[in-house]
Amino acid sequence: MYNLLQGKKGIIFGALDEKSIAWKTAIRCNEEGAQIILTNAPIAMRMGEINKLAEQINAPVISCDISSNEDVANLITKSMEHFAGGVDFILHSVGMSLNIRKGKHYTEIDYGFNAKTLDISAMSLHRLLATCLKMDAINEWGSVVALSYIAAQRVFPDYNEMADAKALLESVGRSFGYHYGTKKKVRINTISQSPTRTTAGSGVKGFDGFMSYAEKMSPLGNASAEDCANYCVTLFSDMTRMVTMQNLFHDGGFSFTGVSQAVVEQMEK
Amino acid sequence: MYNLLQGKKGIIFGALDEKSIAWKTAIRCNEEGAQIILTNAPIAMRMGEINKLAEQINAPVISCDISSNEDVANLITKSMEHFAGGVDFILHSVGMSLNIRKGKHYTEIDYGFNAKTLDISAMSLHRLLATCLKMDAINEWGSVVALSYIAAQRVFPDYNEMADAKALLESVGRSFGYHYGTKKKVRINTISQSPTRTTAGSGVKGFDGFMSYAEKMSPLGNASAEDCANYCVTLFSDMTRMVTMQNLFHDGGFSFTGVSQAVVEQMEK
Amino acid sequence: MYNLLQGKKGIIFGALDEKSIAWKTAIRCNEEGAQIILTNAPIAMRMGEINKLAEQINAPVISCDISSNEDVANLITKSMEHFAGGVDFILHSVGMSLNIRKGKHYTEIDYGFNAKTLDISAMSLHRLLATCLKMDAINEWGSVVALSYIAAQRVFPDYNEMADAKALLESVGRSFGYHYGTKKKVRINTISQSPTRTTAGSGVKGFDGFMSYAEKMSPLGNASAEDCANYCVTLFSDMTRMVTMQNLFHDGGFSFTGVSQAVVEQMEK
Amino acid sequence: MYNLLQGKKGIIFGALDEKSIAWKTAIRCNEEGAQIILTNAPIAMRMGEINKLAEQINAPVISCDISSNEDVANLITKSMEHFAGGVDFILHSVGMSLNIRKGKHYTEIDYGFNAKTLDISAMSLHRLLATCLKMDAINEWGSVVALSYIAAQRVFPDYNEMADAKALLESVGRSFGYHYGTKKKVRINTISQSPTRTTAGSGVKGFDGFMSYAEKMSPLGNASAEDCANYCVTLFSDMTRMVTMQNLFHDGGFSFTGVSQAVVEQMEK
Repeated sequence: MYNLLQGKKGIIFGALDEKSIAWKTAIRCNEEGAQIILTNAPIAMRMGEINKLAEQINAPVISCDISSNEDVANLITKSMEHFAGGVDFILHSVGMSLNIRKGKHYTEIDYGFNAKTLDISAMSLHRLLATCLKMDAINEWGSVVALSYIAAQRVFPDYNEMADAKALLESVGRSFGYHYGTKKKVRINTISQSPTRTTAGSGVKGFDGFMSYAEKMSPLGNASAEDCANYCVTLFSDMTRMVTMQNLFHDGGFSFTGVSQAVVEQMEK
Repeated sequence: MYNLLQGKKGIIFGALDEKSIAWKTAIRCNEEGAQIILTNAPIAMRMGEINKLAEQINAPVISCDISSNEDVANLITKSMEHFAGGVDFILHSVGMSLNIRKGKHYTEIDYGFNAKTLDISAMSLHRLLATCLKMDAINEWGSVVALSYIAAQRVFPDYNEMADAKALLESVGRSFGYHYGTKKKVRINTISQSPTRTTAGSGVKGFDGFMSYAEKMSPLGNASAEDCANYCVTLFSDMTRMVTMQNLFHDGGFSFTGVSQAVVEQMEK
Repeated sequence: MYNLLQGKKGIIFGALDEKSIAWKTAIRCNEEGAQIILTNAPIAMRMGEINKLAEQINAPVISCDISSNEDVANLITKSMEHFAGGVDFILHSVGMSLNIRKGKHYTEIDYGFNAKTLDISAMSLHRLLATCLKMDAINEWGSVVALSYIAAQRVFPDYNEMADAKALLESVGRSFGYHYGTKKKVRINTISQSPTRTTAGSGVKGFDGFMSYAEKMSPLGNASAEDCANYCVTLFSDMTRMVTMQNLFHDGGFSFTGVSQAVVEQMEK
Repeated sequence: MYNLLQGKKGIIFGALDEKSIAWKTAIRCNEEGAQIILTNAPIAMRMGEINKLAEQINAPVISCDISSNEDVANLITKSMEHFAGGVDFILHSVGMSLNIRKGKHYTEIDYGFNAKTLDISAMSLHRLLATCLKMDAINEWGSVVALSYIAAQRVFPDYNEMADAKALLESVGRSFGYHYGTKKKVRINTISQSPTRTTAGSGVKGFDGFMSYAEKMSPLGNASAEDCANYCVTLFSDMTRMVTMQNLFHDGGFSFTGVSQAVVEQMEK
């Protein structure tokens, strides 16, 4: 509790249940002094427990299907009304793969499903930012963070089409970061987080084996959802104003470990 | 003329007119001993001069809208009939941005247009590879190259949504490269080429200013379409069998030049 | 002032005068609740004003030639005595190029001078960390930051041999980060900072032209020494515990901007 | 045999014995029509079998301690006399770690040994290129390749200080590539090769376990010394003239594979 976000206002996408990174981030931002608006897709709101969180941190909940221009415009309009002005930060923690749900192998995906995956998991960040820019909804020196994964850079076979979606997401963050930075001094970054045992993450095939591999490969171990929430707080604070257009690995060192002693020993078994 | 591709068979997408990289590549592959099938979208075939090239290198032309599963399947079926077997290499030189054509600024793109841009410019590579894998259409140690651009890594504002499309394309190359490599020893790479004065390239706003900036920033100057054709030949040959899942900069050193003396001098004017 | 470093103890290298990043960082760390030990090379201490800073933040000064094993061991021993235990963070802001001072062009450097440049600017980080590890001088979850520059990734001709020194420095940070992370949960990162008008930075030939180019290329403008001090504070705090082995660009977006509108316009003049 | 190097002249460093990448490259270059000069350190010449190779490809051998300015100058002078002019390509396959030989752990290296490691393994490329530039010894559009390893980007603990040396080597290639490209249209690249069972490579602790891990992680398997020789030929040929300042992974896809199915299965045992 440092009051790092005292007086700041933010919107947080994707708090499904208490395992969610977004959930922990909302709590930490609130502890650090921020006022929060929570949002999620209607179906995710029904399946999850967002109202419990809303009560805990005294935050309004605004339903928003992030693939709909109208819903996003409605969210931003209502947020600006609620806060009587712009916001200072936004967390985009959104991702969904229809092909994974349907059990399609990467080499046999359906392109209709894929278009939805890309729209919801990546272009949604563009839609959100374009709406904010049009409505001048983010205050100067505001900060936007989207959650990504290292499959955007290297292949993890079971991550399937979400790897491509994350690569697209990171590119959108970079591209829009240039424009929003130039025009309004708003910064946009992605955090490339360790595999995290959230309700969404656990859905990926072979998740347990992969968690344990990542744990063995990371000199500090896997970063938890709580750790990620703390990192988000620093990126929303005024202490990191000149960091923009970056993809920031938050993974205990996994990203720059070629092989670890622990993995070598396992390979020799 | 080294006979680097003697006996090899390949499919080349995107030879619009004689300025096209694909056009030059088709000619160089033919000179190096390969048999070629040419293909392009129906509308591009009408606007361009592909039949002239077909005659010159004695290659069949098969029309293919790369956003259609049926068209791609038809192309691969006919190619295998024509060659009485699989192919050894494929060049994917395909890209189109409806938002650029319509003059939309990156921060105000239409998402319907964008979905088409991503499908035609990036997911088309997936569709092509998935079709080939299913029909076992690429011979062992075959090689696939797709053309990309450094906007996938860094922002060039006028490149607009094509930056995101190229990031997606490179991710698809990488992801599919893992699977096709593991299953069939087929390699997949992207070439990140200098800005090139093709009919397609010239359509980008501010293209001339940008060509001259890139020329000044590249220790060897911009790579031409002819240079790129030669580089493609090496990647299709048996001399580069273990190169896969890479994005290869072919740009006279632009990608690793932070600033050049020539640009510094221009800045001081 | 958030008390982000309440109760923490740190060592700061390289506070020459009040323009130094290390100087600003020492002040910010102190404001955030940390106790500091200042250190620099004997000659830099004579030329600069470190005692003024020492008084201001009530910090002991320990002279240390970072190219000497004995001096580094002495520094760590005395620091542990002073703090009655280990330290929580270290800032390595050290760099020196004899070839630049002597006006040697990169293609004509003296290799004896170069060996000193590499030792002082890069291997000094190894010597420091090896000494700390041997003496168990960094507390669990401690944090080490070294300052770097993007010339480690891309060529900026006037940066000369310091580019290679920074590439070596970043590699040492990564390599040692693996070992120190695995053994003691200590994290090690480099910050790749905008060109900064420090007394050291200004010495580089063509610095002014380059500052202005970087300013024009960075969507948020160049990051200042004060900004960098803030960023260092976040990396020393408990809010970033799982970030390690990274090179973190702190540059207003320069690193991922291929070209900006402002530079394009200047090129067209 | 394509005559890709017909009429070209080159210098090849580091052909110790027939397992060496340099050995295979010399043979392949000769088969492709090039005339070769072989060189190595005096001690390596005594330990190895370079004269056998010299006879086979009818190449002069010139002894050269690459850490000596005089030896390098002598090599270049004699090469130019022999060829009656400049050379078209050079292979730098040189590396040596005294700390590894002495069994020092990375966290406990001797800095005197380290200085020699960096000089012989990395700065030697600078010395070689500086000498060539001064004597105008490389023909326009000439090509220089140095062999590197992915430990320059990610940590492989047993690779020890050679990781840092390779990072330095790649930076030197990039930095000098800018200057040599601008002045003389000479291109300089590094190849980041799979672990290879050479006499030098095998000396690294835990090499076998590591070879097998890399094999399992690479969709096409590890690249052999023969494969690497072929890749070098393409980079020395006129087919890759605009590729410069690059680090080119030649590794069967290892570099962009985050994890493979084969490794996941091994981890689950």
